[in-house]
Amino acid sequence: MASSPALTAIRRNCRKVICIGRNYADHVKELNNQRPKQPFFFLKPPSSILLPGEGPVLRPNGVNMHFEIELGLVIGKQVKDLQTEDDSEILQYIDSYLLSIDMTARNVQNEAKKKGLPWSIAKGFDTFLPVSGPVSKEVLADPHNVELYLKVNGEVKQEDSTELMLFRIPRQLSDISKVMTLEKGDIVLTGTPKGVGTVQTGDVMECGLRIGGKEVEEAKMRVE
Amino acid sequence: MASSPALTAIRRNCRKVICIGRNYADHVKELNNQRPKQPFFFLKPPSSILLPGEGPVLRPNGVNMHFEIELGLVIGKQVKDLQTEDDSEILQYIDSYLLSIDMTARNVQNEAKKKGLPWSIAKGFDTFLPVSGPVSKEVLADPHNVELYLKVNGEVKQEDSTELMLFRIPRQLSDISKVMTLEKGDIVLTGTPKGVGTVQTGDVMECGLRIGGKEVEEAKMRVE
Ligand SMILES: [Mg+2]
Ligand SMILES: [Mg+2]
Ligand SMILES: [Mg+2]
Repeated sequence: MASSPALTAIRRNCRKVICIGRNYADHVKELNNQRPKQPFFFLKPPSSILLPGEGPVLRPNGVNMHFEIELGLVIGKQVKDLQTEDDSEILQYIDSYLLSIDMTARNVQNEAKKKGLPWSIAKGFDTFLPVSGPVSKEVLADPHNVELYLKVNGEVKQEDSTELMLFRIPRQLSDISKVMTLEKGDIVLTGTPKGVGTVQTGDVMECGLRIGGKEVEEAKMRVE
Repeated sequence: MASSPALTAIRRNCRKVICIGRNYADHVKELNNQRPKQPFFFLKPPSSILLPGEGPVLRPNGVNMHFEIELGLVIGKQVKDLQTEDDSEILQYIDSYLLSIDMTARNVQNEAKKKGLPWSIAKGFDTFLPVSGPVSKEVLADPHNVELYLKVNGEVKQEDSTELMLFRIPRQLSDISKVMTLEKGDIVLTGTPKGVGTVQTGDVMECGLRIGGKEVEEAKMRVE
């Protein structure tokens, strides 16, 4: 079980998880989606958070479960109606970073999209948000220059730099905060690069962050 | 400002708001929607909660803002994988009730439905969840036999009994809890009856609950 106070605080302090969709061009293409003209986002419930050591992701019956590796931001200070596209202004609102996997019931989501129904069920199952421990702003100085990777059973599936984001983090926080106030402890997922795919029960996902080619130990995750 | 501890606790203890869609037949018809074969639901962020006395609902620019009066449940005890359709089994998981208005940016939602995008923006703006103070289980003994009403500028717009729900509360909690664990303080909105419509800035919404024809004072709300 997750027992370190720094880990349990991630879930305890989180009141909403806001996820940016379609934020990497090659991922938009691979799912045959339209490239958005502005950032859009959806919510995952805090109850979907899976902390390191809490066990496997649980695949609901009949679900085609996809992984989406994403850089996560933990909000450090309340922010509302943020008016900026400037990188230097956002750091004050970020407490720390996380590596995260936006697990998705892809068949449920596809059905919802077809019917015009909400995505909350497809995105919101218990255990559908594995996260790493916190990575400090000292370690991760530039969130737009980090390599994310995810392997399944040792095979690399996703591996791209956050510099490929279509909408950068200031724009994301600005757009979100014009709709809903971001509160201390809220988590923002910044979108997934190409390479998403299915995992079965028993598969092992290993993922991490690299900065200048160097692995960041705090962000390493291994999830069954 | 909302200052009573019982009121501020509603927001402080809430980590997710789960809303049932299309749960009254005549409301399904009025929006030209399909009647669902099973309950579906979406999330509103806790940041959208507007407590009594906190001021008006804020209409974002360019938004056609609709009211939806709903009976809300405040969860009293964690529940996961609930297997019941039995009324008598659910009371142990309910702490109390609320009257609530599921404010909706209808044009934003219609656009999202057309494009297969999530509903979170349309449903999640700050102030888009006015709630009343808590109503105890002693006062509200049978949640399936309550009359909800909402007036705009004195004119009755919605007025129906919760006995008209397509899926009753045990089924709602059962279906939700098979996807996401319900936690103490979470709020469930049980769907809106017919009569939803637009409100403009400055309009006054008055709403309440009646049991056996008698107004429940705790649930009376007046929102601009
Ligand atoms: Mg994602
Ligand atoms: Mg939420
Ligand atoms: Mg509603």
